[in-house]
Order: sequence, then structure tokens, then C-alpha cells
Amino acid sequence: MALVVQKYGGTSVGTTDRIKNVAKRIIKTYDAGNDLIVVVSAMSGETNKLVALANEICDIPDGREYDVLVATGEQVTIGLLAMCLKSMGYKAKSYQGWQVPIITDSSCTKARIESIDDKNIRADLKEGTIVILAGFQGIDSANNVTTLGRGGSDTSAVAIAAALKADVCEIYTDVDGVYTTDPNVCKEARKMEKISYDEMLELASLGAKVLQIRSVEFAKKYNVDVHVRSSLNENTGTMVTREDKDMEGILVSGVAYDKNEAKIAVMGVLDKPGIAARILTALSDANISVDMIVQNVSSAGMTDFTFTVTKSDLKQAQIITNEVAKEIHAKEVVCDENISKISIVGLGMRSHAGVATRMFTALAQNGINIQMISTSEIKISVVIDEKYTELAVRLMHETFGLAG
Amino acid sequence: MALVVQKYGGTSVGTTDRIKNVAKRIIKTYDAGNDLIVVVSAMSGETNKLVALANEICDIPDGREYDVLVATGEQVTIGLLAMCLKSMGYKAKSYQGWQVPIITDSSCTKARIESIDDKNIRADLKEGTIVILAGFQGIDSANNVTTLGRGGSDTSAVAIAAALKADVCEIYTDVDGVYTTDPNVCKEARKMEKISYDEMLELASLGAKVLQIRSVEFAKKYNVDVHVRSSLNENTGTMVTREDKDMEGILVSGVAYDKNEAKIAVMGVLDKPGIAARILTALSDANISVDMIVQNVSSAGMTDFTFTVTKSDLKQAQIITNEVAKEIHAKEVVCDENISKISIVGLGMRSHAGVATRMFTALAQNGINIQMISTSEIKISVVIDEKYTELAVRLMHETFGLAG
Repeated sequence: MALVVQKYGGTSVGTTDRIKNVAKRIIKTYDAGNDLIVVVSAMSGETNKLVALANEICDIPDGREYDVLVATGEQVTIGLLAMCLKSMGYKAKSYQGWQVPIITDSSCTKARIESIDDKNIRADLKEGTIVILAGFQGIDSANNVTTLGRGGSDTSAVAIAAALKADVCEIYTDVDGVYTTDPNVCKEARKMEKISYDEMLELASLGAKVLQIRSVEFAKKYNVDVHVRSSLNENTGTMVTREDKDMEGILVSGVAYDKNEAKIAVMGVLDKPGIAARILTALSDANISVDMIVQNVSSAGMTDFTFTVTKSDLKQAQIITNEVAKEIHAKEVVCDENISKISIVGLGMRSHAGVATRMFTALAQNGINIQMISTSEIKISVVIDEKYTELAVRLMHETFGLAG
Repeated sequence: MALVVQKYGGTSVGTTDRIKNVAKRIIKTYDAGNDLIVVVSAMSGETNKLVALANEICDIPDGREYDVLVATGEQVTIGLLAMCLKSMGYKAKSYQGWQVPIITDSSCTKARIESIDDKNIRADLKEGTIVILAGFQGIDSANNVTTLGRGGSDTSAVAIAAALKADVCEIYTDVDGVYTTDPNVCKEARKMEKISYDEMLELASLGAKVLQIRSVEFAKKYNVDVHVRSSLNENTGTMVTREDKDMEGILVSGVAYDKNEAKIAVMGVLDKPGIAARILTALSDANISVDMIVQNVSSAGMTDFTFTVTKSDLKQAQIITNEVAKEIHAKEVVCDENISKISIVGLGMRSHAGVATRMFTALAQNGINIQMISTSEIKISVVIDEKYTELAVRLMHETFGLAG
């Protein structure tokens, strides 16, 4: 007998028929003799509907009330799923965040879980009750409802698994697991059997949107094995877990791409301290996140300063950058939307030299110019012309032998 | 400066534009120097949508989970209304039932309020915050979400007004107040300036669906003045309040009708103890409510036993009654759907004789046969052929001079 946490996303519970299917899957696990905590998201589309209502009311909804509003999505699902299980003759009980309670900080719309009281849930499990928990939500110390940000149900699942020391945390989604790259781009893409937390973090932040980043951080911190698998079949998925010796031998485990960024280059800037900070401060004041940042070596006391933002922020970022550029007497500001970011991720990079060389050579041999480079301990990202995205992904997949 | 409780029903908050209008009305009251608690219902149609989802899942949804589900309707409204007020520059804060907390018994789907802790709300009011409270919901002593039954937001409003000793409880609805009868049936119908709790109770239970019955009981118990008025204009509505000397002088204050009942007559029953109980027990076991009950005097040891049920229960009630009738050797069971109940209500009946006579005479003079009669201290109800409903209502209105 094991304690299993299962999480079902919005698509898996998108209709009442699908909720009935999820109930059947839950019962299978329960009847096999397991204790079971099930975390669910809002029915697909519901959160968007609620957000749309808020936007009809005002441009910038108050955070506390926004959370009160959007937390209803998950509440609907837990009520429906619990009544479904009960109608099938099983003991089940729904929990909202405040009923556990799941205590978070007070950062509305993107709260962080601080602690989970497991007393109530343990008592229910002991009585053979299937616990159905609303994902994405908690309360702060002043009894305000908080939410954990988009995809927060993944984090709820991992956090409850950590708090109750579950044997496994299964994340059910509409894909079979984590792939070496996007199967839509590269036919040879292969489902990984397992992947380390760090690699998953890099892949998640690079656009492989299988798990919320924070859930992986949580899993890493508390050593929770996360099994990403499909709710549509019984196949084994991908285990996100602590690294082992096998993993270290692999140079590159995955290739990610992101077409959602744009490049802004501030050309002809005087190379003196404080210039970069000035530009970045102006952007962060406007709540614009900057991803890659590159500054070339100085030539004749002048330098170029280049960075990327998400495409939806480009217009505003351009206006702000132009203003600052004028103040600091930069020569010009050049923007480019037609870029994409290609990243390779692998634990083996730590100990093996030459990975970057192999990457850059393969791209050069195929006439793909590299516009920006950024590296971390286990990741190399390059910005290239958007039209080469798919070609570059397939090249990397082949170069590093990911088809297996 | 007064403490005002305002309650807005589903129609008044049915769209985001209407919520904005409600916000403006709230601000007007607040800016006039009042402390303000606002109770809201779910946006019109929302509760029905949620109930439909539950019915898709199973035939008889579990009560606890049903309440978790339907309580989301009001939660959506409080979030939207509070963020609307904040975006207009006012201090506002939403409250769910558990955040107050409003403690109820554990009768899911029809819970009764047991106590209200006013500490949190008082602290907010003291700081000049407009309190926005989800109607219809509470929690029981085990932290389960409960709901108060259809129309329960009225009760929430009256209860919070009682707990905080508010100066007035305003119930905003889509009608101008309480009328002497249905204006659609009788053009002379007149809006009443005030009406006693007891009269309102009789009128509410007789089909004048302006206020939930339980809210009136609550108002009576705690002496809360309830002002029923329109959210579409600034007109004074009807004050539901404790009786005074003026009221006692009025023989009949209102005329109600109900076309939603059906009659079942068990003919030729042996007149001995326990027969009526046997029929009624069988019905209540099947959760069927019986309204009027009449038993004629015995003739040759035999009697007829007649009662009414709501039309939607007729089929099932008929099957059950037929079974019992067989067991007790009744002669036959006769059903009639084409009936309606006409009622006159007035405090003056207590002290003035002859009201029934005037009612029956007026009906007889117009060829309307009375099939059943039932009376209370301040009410006389008769069952007549459905086709005479409107005529009978107008007759009563005229007979007792209600046009004023």
C-alpha cells in the first residue's frame, strides 16, 4: 500500500464526462490498495472566463479579489469530482486550500506555499477517504484566499506530496511525458524515461510547458519523485527525479525552442558603469521581464547592449528603451521580432568540454547565423533567425544523438 | 451616520455592467456617510448552470459537495464587486461565509444560521472599508461549506443586519416593493408602504416570492426592519417591520394566488384514527410536502380526505396515495390539476369577524365554487377552479378595498 498523489489538469477534467473518466482512473488506483490524494485544476476554459470577467470590470484588478474570483474554478471541479466518486459508492471529500489549510505568503496571484497542515487530510486518509484537493489555491496568515499563479496546481500537487511524504506524485496531462524535443518539430523526438530536476527546470523555463517551474523547484527541494504521464492511456510517462550516475553521462538530454521572444539592441552606448542597470531598471519598473542579456566587448569605449523580452512586451519595451537611449546618447535602438531561441540542456555539460563547439559547428555548417549566446552550467541557448527554428531543433537532436 | 446592509439579487448583478451600476449605488450610500455591508447573490443564471453540471454528474448529488459547488456562484460576484469598488478608489473587501465566519448547522443545501462572529467585519467597518459578503453560504462547526437554500441571500442579509444591529436592511430586487396583489393580474394593485412580519410570512409562503420565508422569520425574531426596494430606481419600497396599531385596523392587506398546486382526494375512507397519518407519512417518506389538508365530517362512518401538493410532485404522490388507498380500502382516489389557491392576509382578521363571510359571498355571487378552505389566524385560503384565478384575485382586491 502506497500513498499516491495524482494531479489532473484542466483538459482532463474539461467536461463532466471527462470527470467521470478521471473518477474511474482514481478508483482503479484506490481499489489496488493505495491511499489517494487527488489535486485538480479548473475545467479547461473556466479560468480564462473568470479572468475575462475581471477584465470587463477594470484594467488592473485588485490582487486579493482577483484571487477570490479565480479560485472558484478549482472549487467547481473538486465539488463535481467528489460527488462523482460518492455516487459511485466511494468515500471522498473535497478540500479547498483554506480547509487543509495550505498556508502561503501574501503575494496575491503568485503566492508561495509556506506550510501545509496535514492533520485533517491524514485523518480522512486513515478512514479510507479519497481526498480531493483544489489545486492552485491557499490562504495567507490573515485568512485571505491566495492563488499560486498559472499552472499552480502542479505546485499544489508536489507540495502536498512533500508534506505527506507521498510515495509518488503523478501529474496527468495530455501528453505522454517529457520528450527530448517537440515531436511536432522533430519526428525522432523520444519520450524520456527519467530526467533530473535541474534539467527539467531548464527545459520548463525554455518553453517545454509540461510542468510549472515552481513545482519542479519544490520537487527538487523536497526530493519528490514526479511522474508526468498521460490521462488518456496507461503508459508509463517520464519520472522527474534526483540525478543519478546514468544521467551524468548524457551530454544533452533535451532540445527546447522558444519563438515567443523579441530582441532589442541598443547600439553605440558609452561603455561605462551603470548604463545596463539604467535600461533594465526602467524596464522592470514597467513590469517587463528581460530574458537573455548580452553585452559585447568594448570597442573604442563604445559597446552594444542587447536583450530579449517576450513578444507581447516588445512595443512597450521599445518605447521605454528609446527614451533611455536618448538620455544616455546611444546611437540607435534596433528591434527584431523574427528571432527564436534554441537551447540544449544536459547534466553532462558540467564535466564534458566541447558541447558548445559541437552546437555552434553544426549550426554554422547549415548556414545558421548565431545572433546571441547565453549559457548556464547545464544549458546553452542561442538566438537565431526565426525561420531556421525547426531546422536547428532537428540538427541539435541529431548532433547529440537524442533519438537514442 | 448609520449602519446599512444592502442586498442585491442575481438580476441586479447579472452582468459586469450591472455590477458597475450596483457599485455606483453603493458609493452613493457610502459617500452619504454610512457604514455599509453589501450582500450579493450569484450572477443570474449562474446557480442554474452549476446545478446543471451536478445533475450531469449524478442523479442525487451528495449534499456536502453540492454546497461546495454552488457556493462558487456568490464567490464570483463578491470578487468582481469588490475589485470594481477598489478600481473606483474605495476601500472594499470581500468575505466568504467561512471568512466571517457565519456558522450554520450541518443541513447541507438548506442549512440554518446559528451564529455570526462580527469581529472581523466590525474591524473593517471601523477602518472605513465597504464589506462585500457572499450571500447564501456559511460553514458548519466542522468547517464544511453549507448553503441556505434557494433565496438564501435574503436570509444572509437579514442575519448579518441582526448580528451587527444595523439600522436598516435594504433588499434590492427587480420590483418596486411588496404589492397588495400581483399587478399583472390586477391593475389596481398598490405598493404597500409597510407590512408586518406575520403578514409577509403568509404572503411569501403563498407565492408572493419577494423574500425568502426564512429571512422574514429571522427579521421577525431579531426585529430587523427590512426595506424591499428596486435596484432600478430611487423609489421608496415597502418596509417589512413589526406590527403597529395602524396595521391592526386593516382587515386584509394582500391577496395572493398559487397555481402551482394540485389536489388529491381520497374518497370513502373509514373514519377511524390513524388513516390520515398513514397517508401523510407515506408522502413525507418520499419527501413530498403537503400544503392544505381538509377532512370532511364523517357521514355513516365514512369520510373524504383531501390535500394539495405541488404540481411537480403530483405523479409520484398519486402513485403513493393509490397504494395506501388500496391498503385502507378507500373507495377511490381523485386528482385534479386544474385548481388554484386564493388567499387573503391581514392582521385585522384577528379581531374582526365576518371577513370569511365577505370572501365567500363575493366568490359565490360570481359563480365561483369553493373546493377547499383553510384558515390561520391572519389568513384565509380557498381552492377554486384554476380558470377563475384572475377573476377571484380582482374580486378580493375590490371587496376589501385594497386599491386604497
